[in-house]
Amino acid sequence: MSPEAAMDIASLTCPLPVTDSPRVLLGHGSGGRMSANLLQQMFLPRFGNPYLNRLDDQAVLEVGGQRIAFTTDSFVVRPLFFPGGDIGRLAVNGTVNDLAMGGARPLFLSAGFILEEGLPLDDLAAILDSMQAACQEAGVLLVTGDTKVVNKGSGDQCFINTAGIGLLEHPWLLSADQAQPGDVVILSGTIGDHGMAVMSRREGLDFETEIRSDTAPLAGLVASMLEASHEIRCLRDPTRGGLASALNELARASRVGIEIDEERVPIHPAVHAACELLGIDPLYVANEGKLVGIVGAADADVIIDRMRRHPLGSEGSVIGRVTERHPKMVVMRTRIGGSRVVDLHSGELLPRIC
Amino acid sequence: MSPEAAMDIASLTCPLPVTDSPRVLLGHGSGGRMSANLLQQMFLPRFGNPYLNRLDDQAVLEVGGQRIAFTTDSFVVRPLFFPGGDIGRLAVNGTVNDLAMGGARPLFLSAGFILEEGLPLDDLAAILDSMQAACQEAGVLLVTGDTKVVNKGSGDQCFINTAGIGLLEHPWLLSADQAQPGDVVILSGTIGDHGMAVMSRREGLDFETEIRSDTAPLAGLVASMLEASHEIRCLRDPTRGGLASALNELARASRVGIEIDEERVPIHPAVHAACELLGIDPLYVANEGKLVGIVGAADADVIIDRMRRHPLGSEGSVIGRVTERHPKMVVMRTRIGGSRVVDLHSGELLPRIC
Repeated sequence: MSPEAAMDIASLTCPLPVTDSPRVLLGHGSGGRMSANLLQQMFLPRFGNPYLNRLDDQAVLEVGGQRIAFTTDSFVVRPLFFPGGDIGRLAVNGTVNDLAMGGARPLFLSAGFILEEGLPLDDLAAILDSMQAACQEAGVLLVTGDTKVVNKGSGDQCFINTAGIGLLEHPWLLSADQAQPGDVVILSGTIGDHGMAVMSRREGLDFETEIRSDTAPLAGLVASMLEASHEIRCLRDPTRGGLASALNELARASRVGIEIDEERVPIHPAVHAACELLGIDPLYVANEGKLVGIVGAADADVIIDRMRRHPLGSEGSVIGRVTERHPKMVVMRTRIGGSRVVDLHSGELLPRIC
Repeated sequence: MSPEAAMDIASLTCPLPVTDSPRVLLGHGSGGRMSANLLQQMFLPRFGNPYLNRLDDQAVLEVGGQRIAFTTDSFVVRPLFFPGGDIGRLAVNGTVNDLAMGGARPLFLSAGFILEEGLPLDDLAAILDSMQAACQEAGVLLVTGDTKVVNKGSGDQCFINTAGIGLLEHPWLLSADQAQPGDVVILSGTIGDHGMAVMSRREGLDFETEIRSDTAPLAGLVASMLEASHEIRCLRDPTRGGLASALNELARASRVGIEIDEERVPIHPAVHAACELLGIDPLYVANEGKLVGIVGAADADVIIDRMRRHPLGSEGSVIGRVTERHPKMVVMRTRIGGSRVVDLHSGELLPRIC
């Protein structure tokens, strides 16, 4: 037996970034560097095509002369129910938001359920009620679905996949490679709420103020931004991997540097306290109802103004800028006047957050 | 404690059709009566809309003036690799076929992976290789995806969801409610191959002839059938629940009776032997590369002729007819001249077959 086989590190539940493991680790699903490596090494060499290669949250396709957006996400969050939402609401809003980030109007969803034998039907009913309400709120129809059941112990209560179709009703391309030096970085509100809401429920943490997930459908906010300006280069909803990962993806795809100002990034005090307690950087914590964007500097004021008139963008602000310096890197100017590199994280900070 | 709670039948891995259980059972994923009940009682009351209510394998949508088909399926088959295929090939062909059954040309797929920590990366690579080959064979592009990793023990190696978009390039509606008395029932080849290939591998059964899954993309076969005739009312790929469930769904949706002739339903001798051994009726065993259809009697010959010229329809034949008698029921005329009702099955015969 080889020493490697004898050790079998992957038989442990291991959050460490063991990037040369011959097995799938939690970090491969983190939205950080290991996720990026898995995509680059396993998926793109096999499936690479002009749609997939853009690495946006959605593919923009031409079908019968019509531009449509198409996207998918699976949801494995634990617990199923958390302050501010549940897996059903997340599954609808997550896919709605991936369509919205491409500038599309979300129209239709599919839903695939993988249920573990033994799940209480009352829990399933509550999840479906929540999905239905979320569909109505977002203005989408669930039009096709599938349910599989796996034996007890072969799943974990309920996993949901949603895929979505949206319509591009304008000629512009919102894509990760469109950022240009001189553009500014905008953010629609506080960061870290979703991830810390799930974590605090899971870890049984009690704070003076309850932390609630921000899960919400962002298509209406995006539509009003697009009405205000055509100078929106790209949008992301910073979910897994948080704001840091979203900005790194944009910097890499556009081959530009991105600078953000720490004091301009809003963080709810309770989220800040929870992150301090757990030793987690809020820049890497998932959001489910926020967007970060790169927009032309000349139009930034009118876009921010429009965002603030929308309930989901009331705290919208400019948080940074795109530069020619340090291409493909994200740098944060700290409160005390220093600066630090904001890299992709290596492993998995918060597993099963979405 | 109530007697019901004390018993907690759902804590067992239970294949029995306990239809009044307060928990999800394997039978809810069977494609039989419990699946139908779950759909009728849990999903349709919440999400019901004109697209979903058709209960076809795909939704046919109008997007920007263009008719497109949209579908999804999750794949949880065990083992991951089996004679004739693997979960990757199944995940591509399954969704391609659901689009094809609506008469659409499959164009684009999404893929959502839920990987269990510890899955060998070599296994993942083999699955992705197989998906890529299947995409190429079916002429579709994988354009968007997502990967989640769950802790060891919270999943089962690898689950895959695929969703797909196809284009309707003709004005006809192929749907479960289009069958009319006087139509005939056609079938493209032998039944039961996929389900018994998986079962024989899982149970370690050895037969003189290896049973191989029939997993294959059927869009080319359907396209050539549509070229030959416009009198194709509806098509189904009889996967979970087999030929019996597919015909029952068509009989119910069209409110017609369906009669099939046992001697005309082709079954591979090894599949027949395996079914006998396991006490399973091949009518209920999953297929992944066959189609059953209802077509106008006048065009049946030309359709069958065209099918037989296609490698995936070389055993195509008429197996029965649509009648006014016994509406919503399927009846089989047996070899010995009797007849029996072919109902939806109640529980789960073969779990985790796709």
